[in-house]
Amino acid sequence: MIAPRGAHLTTPPRGVVGVLGGMGPLATIDFLRKMLDATPAATDQEHVPVVVSSIPQIPDRPRAFRGEGPSPLPAMIASAERLVAAGAGLIVMPCNTAHLWFDELQRAVPLPMLHMVDAALEEAEQAVGASERIGLLATEATLASRLYLDRVGTDGRRNTLQWLLPTAAEMRDQVTPGIAAVKSGDLARAASLLAGGASALAARGASAVVIGCTEIPLALSEADAGVPLIDASSALARRAVAWSMRV
Amino acid sequence: MIAPRGAHLTTPPRGVVGVLGGMGPLATIDFLRKMLDATPAATDQEHVPVVVSSIPQIPDRPRAFRGEGPSPLPAMIASAERLVAAGAGLIVMPCNTAHLWFDELQRAVPLPMLHMVDAALEEAEQAVGASERIGLLATEATLASRLYLDRVGTDGRRNTLQWLLPTAAEMRDQVTPGIAAVKSGDLARAASLLAGGASALAARGASAVVIGCTEIPLALSEADAGVPLIDASSALARRAVAWSMRV
Repeated sequence: MIAPRGAHLTTPPRGVVGVLGGMGPLATIDFLRKMLDATPAATDQEHVPVVVSSIPQIPDRPRAFRGEGPSPLPAMIASAERLVAAGAGLIVMPCNTAHLWFDELQRAVPLPMLHMVDAALEEAEQAVGASERIGLLATEATLASRLYLDRVGTDGRRNTLQWLLPTAAEMRDQVTPGIAAVKSGDLARAASLLAGGASALAARGASAVVIGCTEIPLALSEADAGVPLIDASSALARRAVAWSMRV
Repeated sequence: MIAPRGAHLTTPPRGVVGVLGGMGPLATIDFLRKMLDATPAATDQEHVPVVVSSIPQIPDRPRAFRGEGPSPLPAMIASAERLVAAGAGLIVMPCNTAHLWFDELQRAVPLPMLHMVDAALEEAEQAVGASERIGLLATEATLASRLYLDRVGTDGRRNTLQWLLPTAAEMRDQVTPGIAAVKSGDLARAASLLAGGASALAARGASAVVIGCTEIPLALSEADAGVPLIDASSALARRAVAWSMRV
């Protein structure tokens, strides 16, 4: 860990979690709130130390994936280096689509990183039985890239989940406009669209649904979805807090 | 502005707001949300760039003010230096009581800072007429220090507001336990206690009430208070966004 200037003035806290945020800014705030919720703390001082770089001027990730815009990687590296300079000991990134550049970012940054998809898959494998099917709600880019479906964890093991994906019509009519409605701040419309997407997966046999987009939980509750949800953002928050309390 | 390492890889955004947070962590998240709400943005990229140092292991501010614990200043300086290292161009501090050390912190940190009390007083002077009285809800330490009452702005001008403060009994029975209830997460109890404190000020003639504690707006709405509220945290968020969009 790079000690920040002035760290000699006080005991530098251990286990500073670095949050590479801004993708988008509201999802970053939601992630910070989930870290608080995952922390057993009765006083301010018992909470986990966190530094955040929320620089939203990172080129659009889905556009880059479609080959229609510049790569976000240089801006992501620059943002991560702010966290290194600020004394982070770990980097987490509360944006699923950004994980398409996870491996390149990890090679460029001298800090360990936790992978959001691994955190979600671990919770998903605990939530459903071997014979059950699991749904996935995510952006077109996350689905098309097979980020979740083909994920081989840092332990080298491929997930064995039986995935159930939205149909092309469900993506077009419910999931994609639902995510867009979150980004534009129309949470009531987003909740209705995304609940439709989740219940369609449940109707086709999903025992639970993985929320593989950090915008979706801003609008969709488990009660509205009518099916157990596994929120990748919450899963990553829990792992980040556990890392900080362990080191 | 100190350029972060790697900034050559991309265009470093101008106007990076540094948030010295963690006092407490939930108030920091609330402040970040208020910055989003104060930003006219339709896409991620239009939001203001922010770096946050939320290191909650800062010694308790009210205890230090009472002479019962160590000064928070060294830890506040160390946290601010993380923001300098991360490339902030400005520092804001969403904690009223921490402003008791604002001048010493400003002398130790090579970045401009915005003062939360000045932000709140500017909005208060616009909200009430010269003959009206204005209430103040804050911690015992903020009231006892006369942080708001005697504030001389960076423009050298002393505020001319006619202040109305809670009585000792209102502090003991409503405001202090209300703030403690926010910190322990019992927001329903906090809302009831703090609404009582606000309505007592209104009953004694306050035309509006300044919320001079970043914990209070987590529980108290204007509808519950029954009197116009001037939230120092929102006022500072608006000033921080305006700074970022101007530079």
